[in-house]
Amino acid sequence: MPGVRRLQLPAGVQDLLPAEAAAKRRLEEMLLRLFSSWGYREVVTPTFEFIEALDVGPAASSEELLYKFIDREGHILALRPDLTTPIARLTATKLRHSSFPLRLCYAANVFRYEAPQAGRMREFHQAGVELIGADGSRADAEVIALAVEALQEAGLVDFRIGIGQVAITKAVLAELELQPEAEMAVKEALVGKDLVRLTGLLAQYSVPPAASRRVEGLFGLHGGEEVLERATGLLAGTPAARYLRELEEVFIALKALGLQRYLFIDLGILRAFDYYTGIVFEGYVPGLGFPVCGGGRYDELLEQFGFPCPATGFALGIERLLMARDKAGVAFPPSVPGYLVAGPSPASLLREARRLRQQGAVVELDAQGWSREEAEKQARERGLNLIWVDD
Amino acid sequence: MPGVRRLQLPAGVQDLLPAEAAAKRRLEEMLLRLFSSWGYREVVTPTFEFIEALDVGPAASSEELLYKFIDREGHILALRPDLTTPIARLTATKLRHSSFPLRLCYAANVFRYEAPQAGRMREFHQAGVELIGADGSRADAEVIALAVEALQEAGLVDFRIGIGQVAITKAVLAELELQPEAEMAVKEALVGKDLVRLTGLLAQYSVPPAASRRVEGLFGLHGGEEVLERATGLLAGTPAARYLRELEEVFIALKALGLQRYLFIDLGILRAFDYYTGIVFEGYVPGLGFPVCGGGRYDELLEQFGFPCPATGFALGIERLLMARDKAGVAFPPSVPGYLVAGPSPASLLREARRLRQQGAVVELDAQGWSREEAEKQARERGLNLIWVDD
Repeated sequence: MPGVRRLQLPAGVQDLLPAEAAAKRRLEEMLLRLFSSWGYREVVTPTFEFIEALDVGPAASSEELLYKFIDREGHILALRPDLTTPIARLTATKLRHSSFPLRLCYAANVFRYEAPQAGRMREFHQAGVELIGADGSRADAEVIALAVEALQEAGLVDFRIGIGQVAITKAVLAELELQPEAEMAVKEALVGKDLVRLTGLLAQYSVPPAASRRVEGLFGLHGGEEVLERATGLLAGTPAARYLRELEEVFIALKALGLQRYLFIDLGILRAFDYYTGIVFEGYVPGLGFPVCGGGRYDELLEQFGFPCPATGFALGIERLLMARDKAGVAFPPSVPGYLVAGPSPASLLREARRLRQQGAVVELDAQGWSREEAEKQARERGLNLIWVDD
Repeated sequence: MPGVRRLQLPAGVQDLLPAEAAAKRRLEEMLLRLFSSWGYREVVTPTFEFIEALDVGPAASSEELLYKFIDREGHILALRPDLTTPIARLTATKLRHSSFPLRLCYAANVFRYEAPQAGRMREFHQAGVELIGADGSRADAEVIALAVEALQEAGLVDFRIGIGQVAITKAVLAELELQPEAEMAVKEALVGKDLVRLTGLLAQYSVPPAASRRVEGLFGLHGGEEVLERATGLLAGTPAARYLRELEEVFIALKALGLQRYLFIDLGILRAFDYYTGIVFEGYVPGLGFPVCGGGRYDELLEQFGFPCPATGFALGIERLLMARDKAGVAFPPSVPGYLVAGPSPASLLREARRLRQQGAVVELDAQGWSREEAEKQARERGLNLIWVDD
């Protein structure tokens, strides 16, 4: 008997059997075709890189997510936890003489060393876009409009995209003048949407009541256009006010595109990756406890690779989209008719199979030399039409 | 300035820029469509597994090829060096109640810790098929016929597939009754096609002259149908004779399919992976110093996962096929027309873009609010047709 670890998979990774693999392939092809029609061109980056190229965020916590290993030259390598950072490196090193804005996209697997749970695997697949070299609300609106079309393309109807602005949170936190660990703790409470912990921390660090109210007030702000008004009140006269105006501009641009019914504003959206600097967003479907897509503006990431340049983008979670499709009862169209071609003469079989394949059919050849009775049984078992070639 | 390891890639891995990524994507889609039309269904396996599941061969040398790392539970994990072994595990554990023969395929990346050189990267891409649960010459002929179609589908004309039979080599080596290290050394010389070393080793281990002549004679045997006759002479009366008859049967079946002009026989083909047990083959194109595809029969691999079952299959090297296409001057058809849609009103731009995309065009939106003059310049730079929307 083979040992148990020969037959099992490590926690958090999975096999995709034919039906699941086919759904994934079709969804990725549909999304890449959509991205391509918007002018985004696919790139491929290595599965692993030097840790120095992947661990570029200021947050120490991100390194814990990495699968790390040491090569025989003693360098630390890591499996990529996302594609945004590798594409920033690629752009800074190999595409810096392109025409900007540059539109790039991908469909690839990523790796995060997290506790596996529903909707969160340690290896999973993303499809996404990066719009590099464009600042301003038109660019933010473009990627959000494209995210809406991507979710529609994925067959979803009942979805919403929440839009936030991390620059507001960052400015409001900076005002509190906390020590680094204290700021990190507050940020974690915000990212984790843990209001009880947040209130406790603000008290513990003796944050003045007015500032505390501002942080807590922003944290809970989500809804339609009216949220912008209430935030304007909360932020009046603070440095964060101008970041709120950016958010307003993007919202107005998307409203002009007729997309308002898919959108809401949520100033509590922070995104776990620390490279975001401005407008951020996440897509939700009812009944799934995690976003199906997320992204935003990251104007300081390319600078980490020696090429200062504004950028924005988003990624869709392929497994999550497939779960959302299943939940919503969306099916891919049935596949083409299938045949089993069998009979005594292999050469005649191949000719007949070729003819059928040219008409778009899926054709299995009998590889065993079955009798007619056996071939009939096998065709039935597989749901195939038997073509018996007798000559 | 960012450190040098932030900007560089580890040896043996690479970025694919848009033109290369597009060629790879199109080739993989074409191959998967072909495999699907033959009844092969795609599966996806994890990028890494427990080392016990990947290192199943009897050859100690294969473990050196693995990228290994240790997870936080202390298990040794490794990046997959091929898909045949993971698909054997998947079949044995999750598809053993299917109708056999079972046809599975894949397009995926694999990892081998080898010295990088032309045509040999440490991370590279393969597309391939596995025909599981079928023994006999029809099955061997099916996968070789499919390999011919795959190379044609890839746009190649001037290619040849060499067919060998490792069971002959194994039987002839067994007859020599060498010690394990000696047999390993002889095998390495055979795999490395190092005739000088082979002759030296046979002398060193005092192999009798008749047996030495048999090993050396088989080693050099390659050519057309006449090779079968000469091998029959060399192997007459030895246990290897019946494996030669299997090879003959497959060759005759493929000849009946009209594929003879693509084929030759080469008893020196051994393949590096130690799981092969019978008919093996490799595809070559002129001017490339390495095969573009390879595969064969591996009747003992599934048993390693507790499910004894004959099987055969092959993998194509995607990067190698793309190099062969380039060398042969094969180009993908030009892509669809591209437009840059610009103008003062984002909502009007999106409407116009949507109209053009529905007609199959690639459309970039102006994300910057360019003036008409700037938009004209940008469209020229990118080779796009400018659509200026004025309302």
